[in-house]
Amino acid sequence: MNEFSGILSNAARERLGRTEIGEMISLSAKHGAISFGAGEPSPEMFPVEEMSEAIREALREPDVWGYYHDDYGDPSLREWIADRMFRDGLSPSWVSARSILITNGGGEAVNLASGALIDPGAVVLVESPTYTESLLTFRARGAVCVSVPSDDEGIVPEELERIVSYTPARFLYTIPNFQNPSGRTTSAERRVRILDVARRAGIAIVEDDPYHYLSYDGPAPESYLRLAGDDARVIHCSSFSKIVAPGLRVGWMTAPPELEDIFRSLRVSAGLGRPLAIQRGLRRYLDRVDFPGRIERLRSEYRGRRDMMTELCRRYLTPVGVRTNRPGGGFFIWAETPGAREGFSSRDFARRAVERGICVVPGTAFYPSGGGERAFRLSFAKSSGEAMEEGMRRLSRAFADEV
Amino acid sequence: MNEFSGILSNAARERLGRTEIGEMISLSAKHGAISFGAGEPSPEMFPVEEMSEAIREALREPDVWGYYHDDYGDPSLREWIADRMFRDGLSPSWVSARSILITNGGGEAVNLASGALIDPGAVVLVESPTYTESLLTFRARGAVCVSVPSDDEGIVPEELERIVSYTPARFLYTIPNFQNPSGRTTSAERRVRILDVARRAGIAIVEDDPYHYLSYDGPAPESYLRLAGDDARVIHCSSFSKIVAPGLRVGWMTAPPELEDIFRSLRVSAGLGRPLAIQRGLRRYLDRVDFPGRIERLRSEYRGRRDMMTELCRRYLTPVGVRTNRPGGGFFIWAETPGAREGFSSRDFARRAVERGICVVPGTAFYPSGGGERAFRLSFAKSSGEAMEEGMRRLSRAFADEV
Repeated sequence: MNEFSGILSNAARERLGRTEIGEMISLSAKHGAISFGAGEPSPEMFPVEEMSEAIREALREPDVWGYYHDDYGDPSLREWIADRMFRDGLSPSWVSARSILITNGGGEAVNLASGALIDPGAVVLVESPTYTESLLTFRARGAVCVSVPSDDEGIVPEELERIVSYTPARFLYTIPNFQNPSGRTTSAERRVRILDVARRAGIAIVEDDPYHYLSYDGPAPESYLRLAGDDARVIHCSSFSKIVAPGLRVGWMTAPPELEDIFRSLRVSAGLGRPLAIQRGLRRYLDRVDFPGRIERLRSEYRGRRDMMTELCRRYLTPVGVRTNRPGGGFFIWAETPGAREGFSSRDFARRAVERGICVVPGTAFYPSGGGERAFRLSFAKSSGEAMEEGMRRLSRAFADEV
Repeated sequence: MNEFSGILSNAARERLGRTEIGEMISLSAKHGAISFGAGEPSPEMFPVEEMSEAIREALREPDVWGYYHDDYGDPSLREWIADRMFRDGLSPSWVSARSILITNGGGEAVNLASGALIDPGAVVLVESPTYTESLLTFRARGAVCVSVPSDDEGIVPEELERIVSYTPARFLYTIPNFQNPSGRTTSAERRVRILDVARRAGIAIVEDDPYHYLSYDGPAPESYLRLAGDDARVIHCSSFSKIVAPGLRVGWMTAPPELEDIFRSLRVSAGLGRPLAIQRGLRRYLDRVDFPGRIERLRSEYRGRRDMMTELCRRYLTPVGVRTNRPGGGFFIWAETPGAREGFSSRDFARRAVERGICVVPGTAFYPSGGGERAFRLSFAKSSGEAMEEGMRRLSRAFADEV
């Protein structure tokens, strides 16, 4: 036909290209590279036996086969989540099972929030850098993404205040803990001030918090959701992908009471509920597992990887002029090459590095409008032992040759 | 907060209310009514044992637990679908496994098509009446839905031609077989003419075809997808909900080559892939089942229900002035009360009828802008035997009292 060009939506045009992360992952596979690329949990940590048994049992429940008329998802799983969030200090008292909507991973949660709050031309405030896929989701809805400057303590409240003073915005999108891609955590003190700015400006906060439980140096600071208390302006998004297994495709969002019906309707449009057998299986598994114990094991494993990679950074990257941080949790280290030559492009570097057998994601993938030319995201989640060290050696040589 | 009102998207505002169908289903449950309401397959027809075993086996495949990097879904399931469609005369030769995108039921397929083709203010052509949820999906994207008059043979090509002569539209949305809600099928001859109008006007066709295999008086006419041949302007949407089980939440769409990358990107925004264990299980099941034999059994069962309900309509509804049709497949009979008094409201009638123990969906649910005040959708799919007859008796009395 070659005629869709005349009837394509702006969303489709916006999303025509492949994402930088997708591109790097596929190049990594092609070159058989050691990967510090994908932000994925380690398969050894998936509770395959226990989850399999739990899903097998759920398949025996007759109602998992038909249409399920609660589009928010299985009530018993939502109860577990609401209870867990409250006990772990994540939520204020108004959050109950009815506030919890089960999604296809955390990505669908962000997508539903976008559907409820974005019109073409609306302004969305984002961290700089921020998670690429969320940026693309906002843009596909026609949003203008405005970067709020961030430093090692997260979003700078004064900068946010300055921006909202001249830009009417819909919401601030933030990954407050162990951010993807920078590994940064917004400090507790800043969260209070940021929330205050949001309240005065009348904007919502979309709190994307999939790494919450993966904290390696003590618990994460109090969530925006909880800090806001009865001022229900925070949409909190999370996921079982990092703490159980991503193949389940189960995430969740906490819907402020005012938005409950809206999310229900948007969910119906997006294909009604998600598979019930998996939700019921997950609930059975969660009933049996020592959840705090599991979280401790995950922390211990990933803390070890974080420690090893930061040590390898010191040994292999510092000597070649690369500056790295030490994240308090999550999967990512942010690497910068402040002394790189004029015209250095992280994107071009990453493409040559993957041919030399090491995959990293260039910083340019994470900025709404320029930036990241001298930065990289390194994931330590799926890498360990000799492979991690060999990857670091390769990366070091590539930097030594190219920067 | 009570402040979301200032930052809600138009989509959210558009979808604030509950749908008429959802409303009737919940009233039906509340009053313990006999239901001709929901358009759902009958649970006795779900292959629970075979599908359970197949999913149990799929859970043993290690890669079902991690992220899966093909967002279109499991390649082997997509191969099965592409092969089946071609053998059953549904698709032209350009359709291969790479054209097939696995979705969360047929609803997500329609939603993705909307994302690719609708901007605020864009015109979408729809049948009149048409499926409510699709209407709401189009409107949530900001579309203006324009009704194309239809009669017992489906969309009237002359009317379509007239409308496209003065309205630039993006696509025609049609359920060509045993339509929801009217039970009508667009004739083969009309399809050819409608496709010709679409081609000359440069608009796409979104062919929503979940009832294709449920034909009771011989096969369904050739699909738009196949009729269009190399002129790949048709996006075909279908689902396993009616032919296997809706709880799987597995549908699919056929993406024209030009749109392949766009749908991939939109899918990534909607939360990456769908659960792989279920797709792999479904593929295992399909490998084992005698698919044509299964389809024959479904046809035989639902044909019996269709025959029984049309006979009951003749016996109980015709005498009270209700006109009904005899659909060639699917789940729905369309009932009209041409002689109803001035001011008769199908919506009010349905609300009173459900209190008397019989649930039907009022025709008003299915029109984009007025209409259906004297029409009703009756589903025969989940009803049989004495319950069906008792439901029809109740409905007959309600009509006798109220029309």
